[in-house]
Amino acid sequence: MPSRPESAVVYLVGAGPGDPELITVKGLKLLRLADTVVYDRLVHPDLLDYVRPDAARIFAGKSPEGHSYRQEDINGLLIEHARRGRIVVRLKGGDPFVFGRGGEECLALAAAGIRCEVVPGITSAVAVPGGVGIPLTHRQVSTGFAVVTGRTAYENDEPDWKALASIGTIVVLMGLQRLAEVAHSLIQAGRPSKTPVAVIASGTTNRQVAVFGTLSDISERARNLAPPATIVIGDVVALRDRIRPQDKPASALHGPALLRSIVVRST
Amino acid sequence: MPSRPESAVVYLVGAGPGDPELITVKGLKLLRLADTVVYDRLVHPDLLDYVRPDAARIFAGKSPEGHSYRQEDINGLLIEHARRGRIVVRLKGGDPFVFGRGGEECLALAAAGIRCEVVPGITSAVAVPGGVGIPLTHRQVSTGFAVVTGRTAYENDEPDWKALASIGTIVVLMGLQRLAEVAHSLIQAGRPSKTPVAVIASGTTNRQVAVFGTLSDISERARNLAPPATIVIGDVVALRDRIRPQDKPASALHGPALLRSIVVRST
Repeated sequence: MPSRPESAVVYLVGAGPGDPELITVKGLKLLRLADTVVYDRLVHPDLLDYVRPDAARIFAGKSPEGHSYRQEDINGLLIEHARRGRIVVRLKGGDPFVFGRGGEECLALAAAGIRCEVVPGITSAVAVPGGVGIPLTHRQVSTGFAVVTGRTAYENDEPDWKALASIGTIVVLMGLQRLAEVAHSLIQAGRPSKTPVAVIASGTTNRQVAVFGTLSDISERARNLAPPATIVIGDVVALRDRIRPQDKPASALHGPALLRSIVVRST
Repeated sequence: MPSRPESAVVYLVGAGPGDPELITVKGLKLLRLADTVVYDRLVHPDLLDYVRPDAARIFAGKSPEGHSYRQEDINGLLIEHARRGRIVVRLKGGDPFVFGRGGEECLALAAAGIRCEVVPGITSAVAVPGGVGIPLTHRQVSTGFAVVTGRTAYENDEPDWKALASIGTIVVLMGLQRLAEVAHSLIQAGRPSKTPVAVIASGTTNRQVAVFGTLSDISERARNLAPPATIVIGDVVALRDRIRPQDKPASALHGPALLRSIVVRST
């Protein structure tokens, strides 16, 4: 049960994959307790309803085009508010430690002598496939999964597609713009071109759209989707038709003309 | 907002990694709504306090030694209660689709004409490392992570350690008993023997114990730990000393004699 902390602390709270009810109970409690909430672009606006009216709400979202806040400015903001004795919640989409730059924020806080507590969030990498009926692991189908990002900041940050090609299930976050390249790299590395692929945009929200295909045709089929998107690659994708027989079979879906018919409502 | 469903449905709900406050808001709502709750061994007992007093609570846990319920029996139970018009919540540790056999339960339900809705849970693979200050990804340190299980039911389910050795961060769940073998396989596959490793037992609970080492000495250092344990392998483990400077440095921890001194309290 969170209570007012005795020394300066910043809570890095994962907001989850999109659906505001997928935040944790602990995350919600901290959100209600906070004096300052610094939140990202992908955080669902309904979550801000839980913030106290007298608390400071600071949008620190970075759009794909123009960075509204630099990472150093966000770090400075967190330090400043924590030093003023405020309970600071840094609310981030998904989980703070899965491509969330949470580690960088923790390091900056630690260097300033401020404690950083992480409250995990549901990562899209797990929840978004699950929400459309795709288990990341399944006996005799896939014994494990890997999660990588399609957006790399540094040259040596490029995922090792050759190694990834041998992993049962591959999840790519923030990879929509590089989907053709990702699929090509995996085929080049020996993954069969018939490997099933799903691309789910705005997963777990009421704007969710899912498109299914194979490594060879998915970039064509998903060309009209908009980020944020979760890409799932592997034989587990084919389980979805049997797990969700009430939904339109993935095999019957072809191209953007049918996109509207396969909008899957969020529960 | 969940309400009483119109047709037979089973909710597969992830209970999270251990700390009962790490269940999602949606999961908790369904737990309160349920007429029948079928739960696993790793589900925190406090969560059952939210189940209505007049609801059926059925323990379907499988201990490492004796299987109290066979998977077919669990499937049959879910089908039977759903057909009686009850709101059934199947509460599973972690996330139902990450080594949770959730896919198998969904397939059995679908075959019986019963809808299966998945409410994701926080997987230990992400939350347990995060809880001790280890981010799974970090710029210029690790660009992605893989999650595998040390316990394999079928011969062809053995993880591809050669491919895994090239992934930035490797998380092994249910791997404590095979830790020496896992570490050896990764060294054989070319991962440096000095690669930092953390083993965290009973993560996110008040019984949490964390041990740190390298691929070459971790199996010796972790020999007194008991399952459930999360194993994290990769350079991100070394970030923990800088992210949590208030904790005892991992480099100063040696062997089981000091285990008691590094019990990390759950928040």
